[in-house]
Amino acid sequence: MNNPTAAFLVIGDEILSGRTQDLNVAFLAKSLGENGVELSEVRVVPDIIPTIVSALNDLRNQFDLVFTSGGIGPTHDDITADAVALAFVAELEINQQAREIIESRAQVQGLALNESRLRMARIPKGAELIKNNVSGAPGFRMENVYVMAGVPAIFRSMVGEVIPDLPSGKPQLSRTITVHRPEGEIAQDLSKIADKWPSLSIGSYPFFKDNTYGSNIVVRGHIDAEVLEAEKQIKQLFII
Amino acid sequence: MNNPTAAFLVIGDEILSGRTQDLNVAFLAKSLGENGVELSEVRVVPDIIPTIVSALNDLRNQFDLVFTSGGIGPTHDDITADAVALAFVAELEINQQAREIIESRAQVQGLALNESRLRMARIPKGAELIKNNVSGAPGFRMENVYVMAGVPAIFRSMVGEVIPDLPSGKPQLSRTITVHRPEGEIAQDLSKIADKWPSLSIGSYPFFKDNTYGSNIVVRGHIDAEVLEAEKQIKQLFII
Repeated sequence: MNNPTAAFLVIGDEILSGRTQDLNVAFLAKSLGENGVELSEVRVVPDIIPTIVSALNDLRNQFDLVFTSGGIGPTHDDITADAVALAFVAELEINQQAREIIESRAQVQGLALNESRLRMARIPKGAELIKNNVSGAPGFRMENVYVMAGVPAIFRSMVGEVIPDLPSGKPQLSRTITVHRPEGEIAQDLSKIADKWPSLSIGSYPFFKDNTYGSNIVVRGHIDAEVLEAEKQIKQLFII
Repeated sequence: MNNPTAAFLVIGDEILSGRTQDLNVAFLAKSLGENGVELSEVRVVPDIIPTIVSALNDLRNQFDLVFTSGGIGPTHDDITADAVALAFVAELEINQQAREIIESRAQVQGLALNESRLRMARIPKGAELIKNNVSGAPGFRMENVYVMAGVPAIFRSMVGEVIPDLPSGKPQLSRTITVHRPEGEIAQDLSKIADKWPSLSIGSYPFFKDNTYGSNIVVRGHIDAEVLEAEKQIKQLFII
């Protein structure tokens, strides 16, 4: 019943300025959830090394797994590897395997392995690479921290690479019951159901559609039979 | 030059499960940015009171302003007011002004002011209400913490209500230069520009379009003339 917990550290000025709409949180949340890992916190921090180090150390001590996105490209503002090395007090070195991947990719494209591209081979000592099927330059895992790219296509590919090797738990069963009544009308009875099933997470989300108010009730839990029984009781109360 | 700083605390199991795609972060980020307030951190936490209290106390001590979203409706899982009251060691009481707003709204809709709806009038003592033009039930401000709804339409309306009264700064000027060359080719020269303008934030964001790699370079800063001069130099280097 004790599923692994995870945090997601999004490194990116572009998210904090509102320039870029994040799409990675929901993707990671679903991928982890399907594997029985609970995403328990998300933090978005700017491209400032001490801020990243402090958030990373905070999260990696609190949660079983930490995922990061962003800041592993070839430009001056790509500083995630530096921050991770500092957080772990590890040396940042040119990883030969990463160098070969980046070099062979550059060759295929007829490009030079210049100093900037080589920057993407700077990996903290002791880390293991995470394959990048989209653009070559790898991410890496350092202990319980998985460092991945921010570009959604690359992020998704890297998540796909790491998921099979994660410690996993039992995915929670989730059921959504749509009730065509406003939350204020069903809240009291719903509260009794929630009290009856303390092991379940029962959320209520209002919606407004076709000029009427309704509520989506989401029941989640580790024991399938409990979720299904609560779903049945909620349906009996509010729908039938 | 010292613009107010802000953090955004998103309270919501539905974001952490991946069920709901967040749309509020980018909206708040842009609204604050236009008013010279820097969004400096975002945290997403689950609907667990001690977790909310701890994150809230952490953020309100670190940043000038804190905005929260979610958990102020009528159902059992709406626990934000309880958490805010605990964080401020304030009494949670029925706010008469909030009660009247909720009551008159219910009357118009031919609904009863039942116990669940009254729950939305529970506001920490000493707080000031934030108007909700969409569905009535107000948010509230407690010192530097602005507590708002999670439903995007209501969230946006509340942001619109509070923006005019916020301490504001000088909005940063932002310029985006699209360069049709991969990041690895421009990174070294771009790094020199970044070194030359330490007061500017210069970010590089790769894209892949029409089968070629390109880079969006974003220059942001408080002094317009610096941003425009850096933009000019970047264009001269990479475009002309």
